[in-house]
Amino acid sequence: MSTSLRIAVLGASGYTGSELVRLLMRHPNAKIVALSAESKAGKTMAEVFPQFAPFDLPRLVKIEEIDLDTVDVVFCALPHATTQLVLKDVLTRKPSLKVIDLSADFRLADPDAYAKWYGHEHQALELQKEAVYGLTEIHRAAIAKARLVANPGCFTTTSLLPVIPLLAERAIEADPIVVDAKTGMSGAGRAAKEAMLFSEVAEGIHAYGVASHRHTAELDQEYSLAAGRSVIATFTPHLTPMIRGIYATIYLRTAEGFGPARLHEILAARYAAEPFVTVLPLGQVPQSRHVKGSNHVQIGIVPDRIAGRAIVLSTLDNLVKGASGQAIQNMNVVTGLPETTGVDQIALFP
Amino acid sequence: MSTSLRIAVLGASGYTGSELVRLLMRHPNAKIVALSAESKAGKTMAEVFPQFAPFDLPRLVKIEEIDLDTVDVVFCALPHATTQLVLKDVLTRKPSLKVIDLSADFRLADPDAYAKWYGHEHQALELQKEAVYGLTEIHRAAIAKARLVANPGCFTTTSLLPVIPLLAERAIEADPIVVDAKTGMSGAGRAAKEAMLFSEVAEGIHAYGVASHRHTAELDQEYSLAAGRSVIATFTPHLTPMIRGIYATIYLRTAEGFGPARLHEILAARYAAEPFVTVLPLGQVPQSRHVKGSNHVQIGIVPDRIAGRAIVLSTLDNLVKGASGQAIQNMNVVTGLPETTGVDQIALFP
Amino acid sequence: MSTSLRIAVLGASGYTGSELVRLLMRHPNAKIVALSAESKAGKTMAEVFPQFAPFDLPRLVKIEEIDLDTVDVVFCALPHATTQLVLKDVLTRKPSLKVIDLSADFRLADPDAYAKWYGHEHQALELQKEAVYGLTEIHRAAIAKARLVANPGCFTTTSLLPVIPLLAERAIEADPIVVDAKTGMSGAGRAAKEAMLFSEVAEGIHAYGVASHRHTAELDQEYSLAAGRSVIATFTPHLTPMIRGIYATIYLRTAEGFGPARLHEILAARYAAEPFVTVLPLGQVPQSRHVKGSNHVQIGIVPDRIAGRAIVLSTLDNLVKGASGQAIQNMNVVTGLPETTGVDQIALFP
Amino acid sequence: MSTSLRIAVLGASGYTGSELVRLLMRHPNAKIVALSAESKAGKTMAEVFPQFAPFDLPRLVKIEEIDLDTVDVVFCALPHATTQLVLKDVLTRKPSLKVIDLSADFRLADPDAYAKWYGHEHQALELQKEAVYGLTEIHRAAIAKARLVANPGCFTTTSLLPVIPLLAERAIEADPIVVDAKTGMSGAGRAAKEAMLFSEVAEGIHAYGVASHRHTAELDQEYSLAAGRSVIATFTPHLTPMIRGIYATIYLRTAEGFGPARLHEILAARYAAEPFVTVLPLGQVPQSRHVKGSNHVQIGIVPDRIAGRAIVLSTLDNLVKGASGQAIQNMNVVTGLPETTGVDQIALFP
Repeated sequence: MSTSLRIAVLGASGYTGSELVRLLMRHPNAKIVALSAESKAGKTMAEVFPQFAPFDLPRLVKIEEIDLDTVDVVFCALPHATTQLVLKDVLTRKPSLKVIDLSADFRLADPDAYAKWYGHEHQALELQKEAVYGLTEIHRAAIAKARLVANPGCFTTTSLLPVIPLLAERAIEADPIVVDAKTGMSGAGRAAKEAMLFSEVAEGIHAYGVASHRHTAELDQEYSLAAGRSVIATFTPHLTPMIRGIYATIYLRTAEGFGPARLHEILAARYAAEPFVTVLPLGQVPQSRHVKGSNHVQIGIVPDRIAGRAIVLSTLDNLVKGASGQAIQNMNVVTGLPETTGVDQIALFP
Repeated sequence: MSTSLRIAVLGASGYTGSELVRLLMRHPNAKIVALSAESKAGKTMAEVFPQFAPFDLPRLVKIEEIDLDTVDVVFCALPHATTQLVLKDVLTRKPSLKVIDLSADFRLADPDAYAKWYGHEHQALELQKEAVYGLTEIHRAAIAKARLVANPGCFTTTSLLPVIPLLAERAIEADPIVVDAKTGMSGAGRAAKEAMLFSEVAEGIHAYGVASHRHTAELDQEYSLAAGRSVIATFTPHLTPMIRGIYATIYLRTAEGFGPARLHEILAARYAAEPFVTVLPLGQVPQSRHVKGSNHVQIGIVPDRIAGRAIVLSTLDNLVKGASGQAIQNMNVVTGLPETTGVDQIALFP
Repeated sequence: MSTSLRIAVLGASGYTGSELVRLLMRHPNAKIVALSAESKAGKTMAEVFPQFAPFDLPRLVKIEEIDLDTVDVVFCALPHATTQLVLKDVLTRKPSLKVIDLSADFRLADPDAYAKWYGHEHQALELQKEAVYGLTEIHRAAIAKARLVANPGCFTTTSLLPVIPLLAERAIEADPIVVDAKTGMSGAGRAAKEAMLFSEVAEGIHAYGVASHRHTAELDQEYSLAAGRSVIATFTPHLTPMIRGIYATIYLRTAEGFGPARLHEILAARYAAEPFVTVLPLGQVPQSRHVKGSNHVQIGIVPDRIAGRAIVLSTLDNLVKGASGQAIQNMNVVTGLPETTGVDQIALFP
Repeated sequence: MSTSLRIAVLGASGYTGSELVRLLMRHPNAKIVALSAESKAGKTMAEVFPQFAPFDLPRLVKIEEIDLDTVDVVFCALPHATTQLVLKDVLTRKPSLKVIDLSADFRLADPDAYAKWYGHEHQALELQKEAVYGLTEIHRAAIAKARLVANPGCFTTTSLLPVIPLLAERAIEADPIVVDAKTGMSGAGRAAKEAMLFSEVAEGIHAYGVASHRHTAELDQEYSLAAGRSVIATFTPHLTPMIRGIYATIYLRTAEGFGPARLHEILAARYAAEPFVTVLPLGQVPQSRHVKGSNHVQIGIVPDRIAGRAIVLSTLDNLVKGASGQAIQNMNVVTGLPETTGVDQIALFP
């Protein structure tokens, strides 16, 4: 394997950025050639993330300082809204780039949905049309042909994988789907905010963004696609005092003739050949700690004691399969590398 | 107020036991005269719980060593099944005692339900018939006349208070009620088990007892009572890496003609005069950390974006309002003391 | 007890401010009449600290809006440097006030030491001269006569109490004294800083301010006072992933003829009558969790296996005995109330 | 590199066992052929550690069921005392094995020291004589020739690496050396004990094993070896509410003519070529979170404000460089593989 993809990471001073660097440094076919950060430009990665102190890495620069001629693949871990302007410019300067975008900017195919959930018109509609939603296990074929991959949100990856095959098989009712999700704090990023201080977060739990979290729009889009009809999900995220991990508890109504055992069969069959998705034996419950640091998803199905209902539980590491790991998985698909290359780490437990 | 109730705490070496001691030591009308513990009998409380090192307290003894003549009120914090035998004996020896039981033994009015959920016939059916379910804000009048109060479970107190008034007013459908609950670890008690070790619990979350947790039986009982019909709740508890706190996210269908704002009005009116229950402004979300160490409950109501649905959020400290605090609140009711006496601590945040 | 002290808390939107409010609301001789906060002026306490939602409290105002005629005691929980200007003004406007200051501004008796450690000349030298260092158990008599009490730092209270009696008895050498201290995050306050985010603090430990932390100046001052000679302490604080608690591990050389047992006797005798200081049996080690939420200090002494050395361990809750609890203890002393009034809470464990 | 070492892990159901499996599964020259566990024999690894659910691994067996003919290297992660009997038997059955032992059984070269610290005579004195102390960076040459490597303790690796070069250069006084160490909970293992429950460990810190922890014997041995004279260290471990990480704060007296800058030069030069040891710039302080999940050590040196003293800070992941990572590093040395093979993971932060 002599391929060596030359990589630029835009937004390397945030958590998804550092996670990309952690994984790409050990990817046998990748070479990091540029790292950008705005307010921290000029610093070394070791100053911004001391875990990189033992290693040689490019110094952080501003985006405009990057020589795109030396770059094959761009990972973009910038804030939403900024992203669409940056990527329009970058892809204009070098149209042959492959881009994996970790922001929300290109996830919604419908410009109206984008405008509604994000509060402004999209500024790069052509690119939005072109972008492929990067839920690898579901959209692999389209991703393989894409130039711009819109990497899914962490909550959505967790909540889509166990439900889409059931909708596709019409094994569950499309309404109601209730997703009660719990996330670790790293999903909130590295910006200094009072509500994210250790003393405000440890030793407590709370819901936030109830009925208004933007990842809901992705759930609607992908659930609807799978169901072949419009689906409106109930989605409630909670902040949990842990760094990494997303856990979704999903309450479903089974369709006529489909019990929990049948649902389990469908999911087990659907993901049997997938290296990153494990469907646990019926009745077994996953734990977020058992996927921490890895690109794995674990899914459990438990019969409710009420006939006609099932509970599906799904968990992943929000920074890996929920962000940077799936991004690299998508790069592998886009560039024709074996899909697990560089993202086959085993979960760190305890 | 010269009353001084003489108190025995059975099972003082567990967490609800130590919490009773913490609160009773500062209760102006209570005097702890006996503390029991089985395997730790003979030790001082300071040896078992070093936070009591500065204080004089009775040494831990076996239950049979307690002279009931010197006792007015018994708090029972023993494991279930043991409890019913102990209390039958204790109340036979001294029928005039007042007993607040923190176990599950006397919570289910229906002996069949008890046998089904707990796996054996009840051994003290007469007492079970006599016992009053101690959800203070709902059953205050009956508690005032009771000799034996069955203090509710922590999950159930959290999940009942925000829903019972809505069922009573027929403001919501009785089916489905989906309760997604998150608890801190102290609810699991002090027994040494691998799954409760710090390294197994920190930095992760998971569901447990899905569709089979015994507190579900209490939910069914009390929801049905309020609704005037049989209700079967969906209840999923999750273990969260924090010591104290329960948080229930409850998904409801509103009844015809009742929107979230009306639900909020009903709850706000119902609890306006209650010192321990705060209904937050519509749309505001509670956090478990803001009730930690106190006997308070905070309740929030958020409209779902889907018409006909509402999300109710409720939180309390599992060791206080979810156990020992409500137990003392009930003692106050039983003995005619002002209800907040000795349990008016303000939450410890941060 | 009909006394009712009218209290103003300056800086009520920080953690020591909210802790003062928590304790003063249950103090039988105190009535909070004013709460100030600068950027959050105009808000209710419940908006800033939702644990106060159930209670009536004065709205947050700017300092200049407080009518000092209605105030007997001022607690000042403002940042250092600001404090000296504010208190000079406040005490000019109403010289009869009693002031308990929780900042560092009046702790150092020597203006040169202040200028050296804080980087600027003191702006209220007259007040600095007047202020009494509020380590209650050591300076009680002077505090009783004070108008302005400089409440000690959290690290210093932890590190001074177990060492001062040993220095005073010449039972240890004054050099070296090595204090290795560990603190919870709440000591760092509520300002939003990247280094204090949950994801940066959980699951890790590190030293900070090595050989340069400002509390060192207080250690030098008070150790020297006790020893009757100049003492220069080695002091290393560490940030620990917990909210509350300070733990000091202090390495000492015993003086000729003084073994660890004798050191233990000295400390046990010195604090036998003190309600807030517990000296554990020789060889027993304290834990920070056993004083959490309380005004207690627990001290342990362990013989080193090396002759001539001893290890002293000391712990308290940085927000209570390390800040707001001792502040109220000092108010009690200043106003002639029984010293434990309103600060006799028992530690919250687990 | 076609070498494929056939590996048996004895004691795979504990944390160092699972960590060995995590790392060895991705080691390009290793193949796990046998996993043993006593009480959990018969289970799959996925049942004992669900993070392995996606993978094929040998089922857990009893040691005697392992066919040593199929094994090249044994990692032994058994409790001390058991270990010496097991390894005597195993090496008798197949003398050509290479063994990396993670217990304490073969770390002390002096049988009297062993008997004193472990309370019984050693049962495999011949092997003890043969064993090489596996602190790789210090004893690499001897390890390369060893059949039995005694992998060092986690505290000792942390505390030895930054001090041995200074002793060897006579840059510091050998007395006193004060090591104040903080550890995460995973170092305490997976046995179910009350003191290790989440509710007993979270939100607090405490010292333990003061002046009596068995790792002290290793410090004495290796410090003495480096200093060329008998050294008796002061060592105090503390339990910190985190899963992984060891942090040692070491208080030293510099030798005549050696200031902190010179100490820094010595350490920086000594470890310049070492892939796993990073000496930070003078004055910079390491954090345990920046080595989590990796085999890296980060070392900092800070001048004390007192002349003649220096503070050295050192941190590593107790399960990796403090146990299983260094064990594999040692296997690489023993078998002639490049030393970083399979243990070059980058730290997981946040």
